[in-house]
Amino acid sequence: MQAKIAVALVHHPVLNRLGEPATTAITSMDIHDFARTCAFYDVAPVYLVHPAAGMHSMVADITGYWLTGKGGKRNPGRREAMKQIRMVNTLEDVLQDADYSLWYTSSNPPKGQMCEANALMGQPGSHLIVFGTGWGLNVDEMPNPNGWLSPIAGIGKVRHLSVRAVVAIYLDRLTR
Amino acid sequence: MQAKIAVALVHHPVLNRLGEPATTAITSMDIHDFARTCAFYDVAPVYLVHPAAGMHSMVADITGYWLTGKGGKRNPGRREAMKQIRMVNTLEDVLQDADYSLWYTSSNPPKGQMCEANALMGQPGSHLIVFGTGWGLNVDEMPNPNGWLSPIAGIGKVRHLSVRAVVAIYLDRLTR
Repeated sequence: MQAKIAVALVHHPVLNRLGEPATTAITSMDIHDFARTCAFYDVAPVYLVHPAAGMHSMVADITGYWLTGKGGKRNPGRREAMKQIRMVNTLEDVLQDADYSLWYTSSNPPKGQMCEANALMGQPGSHLIVFGTGWGLNVDEMPNPNGWLSPIAGIGKVRHLSVRAVVAIYLDRLTR
Repeated sequence: MQAKIAVALVHHPVLNRLGEPATTAITSMDIHDFARTCAFYDVAPVYLVHPAAGMHSMVADITGYWLTGKGGKRNPGRREAMKQIRMVNTLEDVLQDADYSLWYTSSNPPKGQMCEANALMGQPGSHLIVFGTGWGLNVDEMPNPNGWLSPIAGIGKVRHLSVRAVVAIYLDRLTR
């Protein structure tokens, strides 16, 4: 039995560089890179979590260009990828969609249940891999996860990859 | 004996969507993502290939903010990553730096010598992994490579990952 995997990119609640509660802006590049990487590895949907209505409008404008506008005619692959974007206010909203097991990600996760990305595929049911923007997920304001994905180990010269790199690496590991 | 790995991101010569010779603009996001991913996996230097002097100035402005300006004080990790950026006019200029074996990348490489990313680490000497922007490398205007890295296989819903995702996946595979 194989897992069904979805992804969430959280812009609130996250932390800022000082470790304080914060909200980040959604970036166009993240929408495209998350949509493309997830479609490439057949992971869906891609939930973008942000509480601000203005950000929802921006995402609707960007995805609309590909879903119903000129972009999708020119590049049907990008339209396929953009179809999987779901804009929501909160992570709790995502849990209305399906009975997801929550797997949080961090470069420095707290103690708790760890799971290697490639082990997740063997677990039945629906799984949501949750990525934070800014300086990472503010777990104090989030539901308890099922566990954490084992962090990606580097050589230590820099501690953090971009979230665009992290989602690519985890999804590649899922399938290997 | 272990390989020494460096990376090049080529903006010319590349192809446009019609398969014609083209030149792309350097983006700030690519500079940051390439610098961070490479530093994370201890891969250096990171060559940015572009023939236009204006692009060289832009890269100097961006990297300068982190190397000698305020950015590096606030975020020393980013300074470490940015130290490895090298701006060059052509791929041939990169070959003046070291006796690199050239490994090109493509989602659909021509027939020729293929190498799995993780097999590269076992080969002695200096290796340059070359990534194209736009619609990929214009190999007709480039030196013959030593070979191609085996393409990253997806499930086919979209054919191409972003170059930011591709470098992250290959460097992760190098080390696994």
